[in-house]
Amino acid sequence: MAMCQRDNVNVYYESLGTGDPAIVFLHPFSTNHFIWAYQIPVFQANHRCIVVDHRGHGNSDKPESGYAIQEMAADVIAILDDCGIDKAVLVGNSIGGMIAMQTSLDAPERVIANLILSSGTNLGADTPPEVAEAMQSDWRAVFGGLMDAAISEKSKREKPEIGAFMSGCYSGESNFNEQVFFANAGDPSGVFAWNISDRLKDISQPTLIIAGKEDGATTPEQNQFLADNIPGSDIQIHDDIGHFCQLENPTLFNSELEKFLKKVA
Amino acid sequence: MAMCQRDNVNVYYESLGTGDPAIVFLHPFSTNHFIWAYQIPVFQANHRCIVVDHRGHGNSDKPESGYAIQEMAADVIAILDDCGIDKAVLVGNSIGGMIAMQTSLDAPERVIANLILSSGTNLGADTPPEVAEAMQSDWRAVFGGLMDAAISEKSKREKPEIGAFMSGCYSGESNFNEQVFFANAGDPSGVFAWNISDRLKDISQPTLIIAGKEDGATTPEQNQFLADNIPGSDIQIHDDIGHFCQLENPTLFNSELEKFLKKVA
Repeated sequence: MAMCQRDNVNVYYESLGTGDPAIVFLHPFSTNHFIWAYQIPVFQANHRCIVVDHRGHGNSDKPESGYAIQEMAADVIAILDDCGIDKAVLVGNSIGGMIAMQTSLDAPERVIANLILSSGTNLGADTPPEVAEAMQSDWRAVFGGLMDAAISEKSKREKPEIGAFMSGCYSGESNFNEQVFFANAGDPSGVFAWNISDRLKDISQPTLIIAGKEDGATTPEQNQFLADNIPGSDIQIHDDIGHFCQLENPTLFNSELEKFLKKVA
Repeated sequence: MAMCQRDNVNVYYESLGTGDPAIVFLHPFSTNHFIWAYQIPVFQANHRCIVVDHRGHGNSDKPESGYAIQEMAADVIAILDDCGIDKAVLVGNSIGGMIAMQTSLDAPERVIANLILSSGTNLGADTPPEVAEAMQSDWRAVFGGLMDAAISEKSKREKPEIGAFMSGCYSGESNFNEQVFFANAGDPSGVFAWNISDRLKDISQPTLIIAGKEDGATTPEQNQFLADNIPGSDIQIHDDIGHFCQLENPTLFNSELEKFLKKVA
């Protein structure tokens, strides 16, 4: 574990395990590295696994600004440098998927392949104006509603701990907070405004998109748009899964990641 | 996150959240801090949460020897010092529970209360000699059988990811390895030999023991022995739970921890 400093921002990461290809796990907005709890112990047995807390999250610094997806992609490249890793497979969920795609464009020689889990681009364009407005007055309530819509009915019934994990992550001031939320939400290249619609065609790495049929945060259509525009990419859209397949069905997710690693290594 | 150095051994910990009482989470033998994934994001909202990788595990150093439970308790005290925490609630699972009990004896003024999750003392005394012998020739197979017996039938059916988490943790060389296993197993005050049977009466902190009816690693009887001997302690033995209530039923575990915190704070 270490801090990687870039432009005076400390970004937290852990490195566990050995073996190629290395895998970098990139978590969703508002969460932290614990979301990969069912992946790291498993994949560390045969791969070097890196987990990151993005700037603004978890153990990383929470600067006032600098939340463009491009900044977070530059953090990933700095972490690869720090670890002496030439190339890695990127596994990114939601904002983590955006960071993976941006890293693939900015440093294609460092990325072996991408597994994009429930992500999209230009997400803010699909946000109804009344929701955007409500977010300004009570971001935790609106974001909470979004997180609730991001978990499948089956997962809510059988694994209520997933909802508790999510709401814990954006409660309190330590893991994630209001200032970080608005600095990300208001950034012209941040989580909601970031738009690489016309650059998806330039992503040249093997890319697998895993999406959930019940994902109300990044819909099957938003994920399909990625698949339709990234050359040669594959997509799976799973029943009974929302935005968080790695927690909702770790057995399924790990099996698909394992197959993908065999295919691209 | 940081490393706490004591006697030239670096012990990894993370600190997330603010608020009293602080809580220190101590994981089972062979695992690491990720086992608390469904607790840290939730409790960090209102409490300072510390997670530790015990020496020999995860991100911590793996020295050749020095695996007495007393050493690990001294590491916890050093981490409290490092964090400037006067007193904390200790939450320990299995070897983590042993470390909590030892810390309570060695530095009673630093421990507010203990939540002991599936633990025991003098565990090696109950190990059949043929099992102890088989462990010498193929520790991973025997330990794997023990881990399998440590998860309830319901959890195996509904959450197969728990078994995958456990077997991942002791596969490979990075998180935990053969040398660490035998150094712990062979230590005269280590995980199997540590025996405070006649000192349990001196644990003066409020103590709650949570055990699983289907736990084959530390049986209900072994947990009951703790409850019978720690003055004023309470015990719960839950149906459909094995050794890992924090993963098998995080909603139940978190609710009990929340109630316990209210009671002892």
